[in-house]
Amino acid sequence: MKLLRYGPKGQEKPGLVDAGGGMRDLSAHLADITGDTLSANRLAELAALDVERLPRVDGEPRLGTPWGGIGKIICVGLNYADHAKESGLPVPTEPVLFTKAISAINGPFDDVMLPRGSEKTDWEVELGIVIGKRARYVEQAHALEHVAGYCIVNDVSERAFQLERGGTWDKGKGCDTFAPIGPWLVTPDEISDLRDLALNLSVNGETCQQGSTRTMIFGVEEIVSYISGFITLEPGDLICTGTPPGVGAGMQPPRFLAAGDEMRLSIAGLGEQRQRVVAWARQD
Amino acid sequence: MKLLRYGPKGQEKPGLVDAGGGMRDLSAHLADITGDTLSANRLAELAALDVERLPRVDGEPRLGTPWGGIGKIICVGLNYADHAKESGLPVPTEPVLFTKAISAINGPFDDVMLPRGSEKTDWEVELGIVIGKRARYVEQAHALEHVAGYCIVNDVSERAFQLERGGTWDKGKGCDTFAPIGPWLVTPDEISDLRDLALNLSVNGETCQQGSTRTMIFGVEEIVSYISGFITLEPGDLICTGTPPGVGAGMQPPRFLAAGDEMRLSIAGLGEQRQRVVAWARQD
Repeated sequence: MKLLRYGPKGQEKPGLVDAGGGMRDLSAHLADITGDTLSANRLAELAALDVERLPRVDGEPRLGTPWGGIGKIICVGLNYADHAKESGLPVPTEPVLFTKAISAINGPFDDVMLPRGSEKTDWEVELGIVIGKRARYVEQAHALEHVAGYCIVNDVSERAFQLERGGTWDKGKGCDTFAPIGPWLVTPDEISDLRDLALNLSVNGETCQQGSTRTMIFGVEEIVSYISGFITLEPGDLICTGTPPGVGAGMQPPRFLAAGDEMRLSIAGLGEQRQRVVAWARQD
Repeated sequence: MKLLRYGPKGQEKPGLVDAGGGMRDLSAHLADITGDTLSANRLAELAALDVERLPRVDGEPRLGTPWGGIGKIICVGLNYADHAKESGLPVPTEPVLFTKAISAINGPFDDVMLPRGSEKTDWEVELGIVIGKRARYVEQAHALEHVAGYCIVNDVSERAFQLERGGTWDKGKGCDTFAPIGPWLVTPDEISDLRDLALNLSVNGETCQQGSTRTMIFGVEEIVSYISGFITLEPGDLICTGTPPGVGAGMQPPRFLAAGDEMRLSIAGLGEQRQRVVAWARQD
């Protein structure tokens, strides 16, 4: 299944992708897709529906994040050996963790806004793991039982805020609009090989990141198990698993986002994101 | 006003403290105390109630966190010059930020559980700032308009997880039960001088931390303004403002918590917390 939510921000309705790639509405079957609806039982109920009898969604509505009520976003840093190298940092011996503020959450096609004073806003295509069942001290052998599915995340990062302002990375990771998620939450039955997914990110049509989950240092089972030994993962929580090489900060010379740029991200089987970069503007 | 929530975990009812120190029930006036009920208008409505006509709460029910639906916990590290010194770290030139996972949230008198494998669990009494109104690029002069009130937080920290496991501090800050909050959310009108609040923490009756907000490096206005330039603060979000000296890791030799220990925390005007430390045990 490819679950999604469509409609204006804050008023999204649940839906899914049909066999022909069209959108179908799930409103008659659940009020919203949230952590509570990501259990194996609830997902099995949805999978048992006759998709052809679900109402088609007309037009091209905005897509929101594919599930709502995300409680926390835990990220693994430097999880591709070649990205650690381009960052000039040693390959970690155990997962490096940091967080993205949930106020940064954004739809997969919504604009990414440069924060005020930003000069080094950068991109990171990442495989996202969506938790479906509470994970607390979970063994690797059971880790996948806690996963509801996968999605694309753009771990947008302001490098000066992240690296030059003291303390942890969080200052450069949680700015508004810095967490585009989606377009779909894809259930595990649709993923043939987690360790062989192609990831791509282009800026203005030029390929910047081109990688594969093959070069991940810590795999999905290890990451879920590891985090659950420190921080309890709840249904609806999101894990970002790190980015392959090709970020702007690693280029010679470094290249960062400017207003008007367009990012396109894809992961095999998980769809495509696209964001326009806009200048900072005061909001409410 | 001193707001509180009482009752079993997950089923707390709203209440407040009356002039005699007793508890009164607010259920007839609001379903729960959450970020949505912390706006200046909603707080003014509650403040206008005739407390003597509110029903008394009988017995000594458990206290939960004084408000629910906490979206995120942003923490300022090393914000007392003397604590930075005992930690062997330089005094920061701008606030050091990290986060506590919301799955760590606990009532002010609930047990604190040592994580599995912990040998260095430590205490930190802190002044908590409760956000009442969205804060995004807020000037210092307007920062207090975004604050609904203050509370005690015990920023429980596993030092080995925090400092010896690679990456950021988050691994040692977000373990289950590591964020006791309360007993009350105290509105600003009850605080005479934010820069002169005594903080205390004792373990088994022995005073460990004894400080004052006078020695904070960055004050409340500066912290709210600073964070809001990176991460948007939403109603119900909590900021932990750092701890004065006297943590276990700073002692010679270092001293850490063991099962059976009892912590007591107080901040002038904000009440008292008390937690028993218990050994790790598998939960659901």
